[in-house]
Amino acid sequence: MYEVELKVRAGHDAVRRRLDEQDAEPVDAVGQTDVYYDAPHRDFAATDEALRIRQEVPLDEVEGDDAGFDWPAGEGTTMVTYKGPLVDDRSKTREEFETAVADRDAMEGLLDGLGFEPAATVRKRRRRFALSGYTVTLDEVAGLGEFVEVETEVESDDIEDARDGAVAVLESLGLDSADGIRTSYLGLLLDS
Amino acid sequence: MYEVELKVRAGHDAVRRRLDEQDAEPVDAVGQTDVYYDAPHRDFAATDEALRIRQEVPLDEVEGDDAGFDWPAGEGTTMVTYKGPLVDDRSKTREEFETAVADRDAMEGLLDGLGFEPAATVRKRRRRFALSGYTVTLDEVAGLGEFVEVETEVESDDIEDARDGAVAVLESLGLDSADGIRTSYLGLLLDS
Repeated sequence: MYEVELKVRAGHDAVRRRLDEQDAEPVDAVGQTDVYYDAPHRDFAATDEALRIRQEVPLDEVEGDDAGFDWPAGEGTTMVTYKGPLVDDRSKTREEFETAVADRDAMEGLLDGLGFEPAATVRKRRRRFALSGYTVTLDEVAGLGEFVEVETEVESDDIEDARDGAVAVLESLGLDSADGIRTSYLGLLLDS
Repeated sequence: MYEVELKVRAGHDAVRRRLDEQDAEPVDAVGQTDVYYDAPHRDFAATDEALRIRQEVPLDEVEGDDAGFDWPAGEGTTMVTYKGPLVDDRSKTREEFETAVADRDAMEGLLDGLGFEPAATVRKRRRRFALSGYTVTLDEVAGLGEFVEVETEVESDDIEDARDGAVAVLESLGLDSADGIRTSYLGLLLDS
């Protein structure tokens, strides 16, 4: 499966009104702490790959809606994710593998033993909505501000159609795909 | 924590009688299929590290005691393990990190994306017993035969004492630590 994703920088208040008008369905609201790794044998910044350990905590379990970007270590679930190089540069399409892991410390030790090193941490509050077969994600990113993503997962044959659909969903939210940001939050933070 | 382990090649019938005489406690009986990986940036055979994805199936859930070495893919649990270089060559002591993962296919995809490649597969039927604070493991390894391991996990200060204790347990089973095999099953299979 390939992830097709469009992302723009946009204030959330206007977008949430448009989501309400279209009866978008709230999916969840989570806090995420993502630790990105450098590889010992490749320059991920050059190859545009990523390796990440993510801690995800339901926001309603951590001090309610005003929790900021800090949540207790060890809370929630841990996932490890590899994102391959871009397949379609316009839509940020790439191959992705992700699995939950039971023991975060062990996964960190494994990566450390293999020579992978923590490079940067991204913290965000993420609210997801379902709309027209897409996931609309409202992200508040620590140190960066507010963003909106429209994404879906498809087989390789359907990438072009999925991208057209994502553009339409973005426009229905009053946003313009011409403002699309292809740089990851990690990249934006490293550039800032 | 460090794993202290002694392994000898030994038929199981006599050892099981000695285990019974000492009231060793049966812990579990599992089938394991281990896929070992080569690294893109290191020669694990030279550094004596290992990276492994293990499928573990309780033997009583797969056709009883006579199941051979084949069990259905997707059954049981999946773990990913990194074993660091030897710290103490005599006792095969090394640092080890292991965690369960929810999605085996995703972990395989992640390792493949990072350039790690499956190198060899080891299948075995493993019966574990608890005796005198150690784990005694009776392994039938496909293509290799029967082995007995005595092992425990300790802090780094306690490695020498733990090794002495493992020698004593091995002797109580009628086995001789001078017959100790330092080569892993993977190494024995690759050499055979």
